[in-house]
Amino acid sequence: MEEKVINTGLRGVTIASTKISDVDGAIGKLVYRGYLAKDLAGKVSFEEITYLLLYEELPSETELTDFKQRIAQERTIPDELVTFLEASPKDALPMDILQASVSILAQYDPDLKDASRDGSARMAVRMIAKFATIVAAWDRIRNHHKPIPPNPDLTHAANFLYMLNGEVPDDELSGYLDTCLVLHAEHSFNASTFAAREVASTRAHMYAAVGAAVGSLSGALHGGANTRVMQMLLEIGSMDKVDDYVRDTLEKGGVIMGLGHAVYQTDDPRAHILAPMSKALGERIEDTLWYDLSKALETKGKAAFKEKKGRDIYVNVDFFSASLYYYMGIAVDLFTPVFAVSRIAGWCAHVLEEQFAEAAPKTALYRPESDYVGDYCGPDECVFVPIDER
Amino acid sequence: MEEKVINTGLRGVTIASTKISDVDGAIGKLVYRGYLAKDLAGKVSFEEITYLLLYEELPSETELTDFKQRIAQERTIPDELVTFLEASPKDALPMDILQASVSILAQYDPDLKDASRDGSARMAVRMIAKFATIVAAWDRIRNHHKPIPPNPDLTHAANFLYMLNGEVPDDELSGYLDTCLVLHAEHSFNASTFAAREVASTRAHMYAAVGAAVGSLSGALHGGANTRVMQMLLEIGSMDKVDDYVRDTLEKGGVIMGLGHAVYQTDDPRAHILAPMSKALGERIEDTLWYDLSKALETKGKAAFKEKKGRDIYVNVDFFSASLYYYMGIAVDLFTPVFAVSRIAGWCAHVLEEQFAEAAPKTALYRPESDYVGDYCGPDECVFVPIDER
Repeated sequence: MEEKVINTGLRGVTIASTKISDVDGAIGKLVYRGYLAKDLAGKVSFEEITYLLLYEELPSETELTDFKQRIAQERTIPDELVTFLEASPKDALPMDILQASVSILAQYDPDLKDASRDGSARMAVRMIAKFATIVAAWDRIRNHHKPIPPNPDLTHAANFLYMLNGEVPDDELSGYLDTCLVLHAEHSFNASTFAAREVASTRAHMYAAVGAAVGSLSGALHGGANTRVMQMLLEIGSMDKVDDYVRDTLEKGGVIMGLGHAVYQTDDPRAHILAPMSKALGERIEDTLWYDLSKALETKGKAAFKEKKGRDIYVNVDFFSASLYYYMGIAVDLFTPVFAVSRIAGWCAHVLEEQFAEAAPKTALYRPESDYVGDYCGPDECVFVPIDER
Repeated sequence: MEEKVINTGLRGVTIASTKISDVDGAIGKLVYRGYLAKDLAGKVSFEEITYLLLYEELPSETELTDFKQRIAQERTIPDELVTFLEASPKDALPMDILQASVSILAQYDPDLKDASRDGSARMAVRMIAKFATIVAAWDRIRNHHKPIPPNPDLTHAANFLYMLNGEVPDDELSGYLDTCLVLHAEHSFNASTFAAREVASTRAHMYAAVGAAVGSLSGALHGGANTRVMQMLLEIGSMDKVDDYVRDTLEKGGVIMGLGHAVYQTDDPRAHILAPMSKALGERIEDTLWYDLSKALETKGKAAFKEKKGRDIYVNVDFFSASLYYYMGIAVDLFTPVFAVSRIAGWCAHVLEEQFAEAAPKTALYRPESDYVGDYCGPDECVFVPIDER
C-alpha cells in the first residue's frame, strides 16, 4: 500500500536531480555548479555568477566582457512597460508590480514563440538584465520621480543603485550589493524556484514560469522575510528593548524573524558573509544601531529559543541582509524585489534545466496526489438534490 | 537511508489532504465536495458549482440568487486594466495577457492587504467574476473592436458569449458552455492548482497564487492541450486523412493530442459528457466534421496505440472540448483562457484551503529536496580560480 506523507511541505522528498546547486543543511554548505558560494562571494560579480549558473562554467575574461555587455545592452525596458508603471497606483505592492511586469515583458520578447533552448536562454538573459531596471523604475515612479535610464558603463550592482538614487555609488558600496546579489542568486529547490520549475514542467515559456516564481517569492514565509526582519528591527528600535522583545515574542508563541530555515540546521553560510558587511557599512555611515540590534537579537534570540524549546535555532540569509539593505538606503518594502533581482538568475537556470536537461522527462509535468478527506456525506457520494428541493 | 524518487513529476506522491475534490483515475471518477461531477453536469450552473467549491455546500435558492448577483456586480474590470489591454500588442499570447491582468487586478483590490480568510474569499469572488470579462475584452480589443460591458442579467456562461460576440446566446448554447465551465472548474492537484497552492504556501496573496496557476495552465502539456487538439483537427481537415495522420504520428513517436492523461487509466468522465454536446452542437449548426473527425480519431488512435504499445490509451477532457468550443465560434487560441475562466474557481478554493484549512501547517511552505549531480570537479568542490588566472 502506498504510504501517505501528508502536509510535510515536501520536506525530505527528493523530486528531481539537478546540476545547478547543492545545499547541505546539516553542515551549512552551499554550492553553485561545483563551487562553494563562500569561495565566490566577494571575488566574483553578479554577472560572472549568472554566467556560471546559465552556462555551467565560470567565464574567461573575453566571455565575461561579452556577457556583461549583453546584460548592459538588455537593461532598457520597453516604453510600454514604463507607461504601465506610471499608470499604476503609487501604493501598489512592489512584488505585484514585478509579477505584472514579467507577463508584460513577455509580450515584447522577439523569442517568445521560440521554444528552443537557445530562445529560452535569450529570454532569460533579457529578464535578468531588466529586473533591476523595473524595480528601480518603480521606486522612482511611486515617489513621483522620473525613472533613471540604465548606465551601460556600470556593473549590474552599481547600475541598480544608480538607477535608484541617481548617484553612481563608490566601489565599496556597489561591491557590498554585488556580493548580496551573488549570495542570493541560487538556492536549489526553494519555494520560488520550485514554482518556476513546476510551471516550466507544463512546457509553459520562461516568462510564465518566472512570473510564478515572483508570486512565490512575495510570500511572507519566503522572500517576504527580509522585509519583515527590518520591520521587526524598526519596531524594536533601541538596544534596551531587545530583551523584552525576545521574551514577549516567544511567550506569545511568535517567531523571531530571520531565525530558522526550512533546510539549514546550522547558521546559514550566507549570513556569515552578510553580517560583517552590515557591520562595515554601519560603521562607514556611523550608524551601527541596526547591525548592533541584529547581533543582540541573534545572541538573545538563540539563547531564549534554546531555553524554551530545548533545541537550537540559527540565523538565515534574511537576518543580516535586512540591515545591510537598509544601510544602503533601499526602501524596506523593496528588499524582497531586490532578492528577486538576484534570484532571477537561479530561476532561469532551473527553467532551462527543467525543460532542456538531457535527463528531463519531456512529457511529464508535476502532478502530485492528494488524500481526499471530503466526508460530506459519509463514505458514499452525496446524492444531488435540485435547488428547488433543497 | 532516504529513498530517492527522481523525475517522477510527483506521480503517486501524496502531498496534502483536501476536501475539495477527488479524482479516482482507475475507475474514472471525479467528485466535487462529495458530489459526482457527472451528477452535477447539466443540472447546475457555473455559479452554483463555484459556490459549492468555495463554501463547501450547494446553495439554497436565496443563497444562489445572492451569489449570482455578487458575481454579476463584480464582473466589471477597472478602466486601467482596459487601458492596459488596449496598449498591448495585438499578437500577444492570450494567456500572457491573462497572467498580467491577474497581477494588475491585485493593485485595485481593496482587500489586498487583508490576509484573513474573508478578505481572501472576497478577492476570490472578484477574480472569478472578472476572468470572463478579461478574456472577452482581450478578444474584442485584439480584433479592433470595443469591449462589450458585462450584462448583469445574464448567467456567467451566457454573459461570456455575449461579451465575445455582442449577441445574447440562446439557452441551448449558453447551457453547453455552462456545462463546460462546470466540468472544468476543479480537478484536484493538477499542475496549475498545485502551482497556486505552492505559491499560497509561502503566504503570498490570492492574486500572486492565481497568477502562478495561469502560467502553469498555459503550458502545452496542461491547459494548452485543448488548443493543440483543435490545431490537430484543423491540420487533418477531412475524414480521409485520419488513418494517415494516426499512422504517421505514432510512427514518428509523436502523440495524438487529447489522448492520455496523468491520472486517468480509463476514459476521462468529463469527455463522456462533452462528446454528446459536441455532436449536438455540430448537428445544430450543420457542420459535424470536427465532431466526426474527433470520433474517428478516438477509435483509430486508441486501436493504433494499443497495437503499437500493447496497452490502452484514453480520451481526456481536452479531446471533445476542442470541437465544442470551435462550434461555439470561440477563437482557437482562446480555448486555454476559457479553461482558466472555469478553473479559477478551483484554484481559489485550493488557495483558501492551503492557507486557512484547520489542518494546514501555518509555518510550512512547499520546499522539496533535489539530488545534486553536479560532478563538475569530481566528488570534491571545484577550486575557485580568479578570472585573470583562468
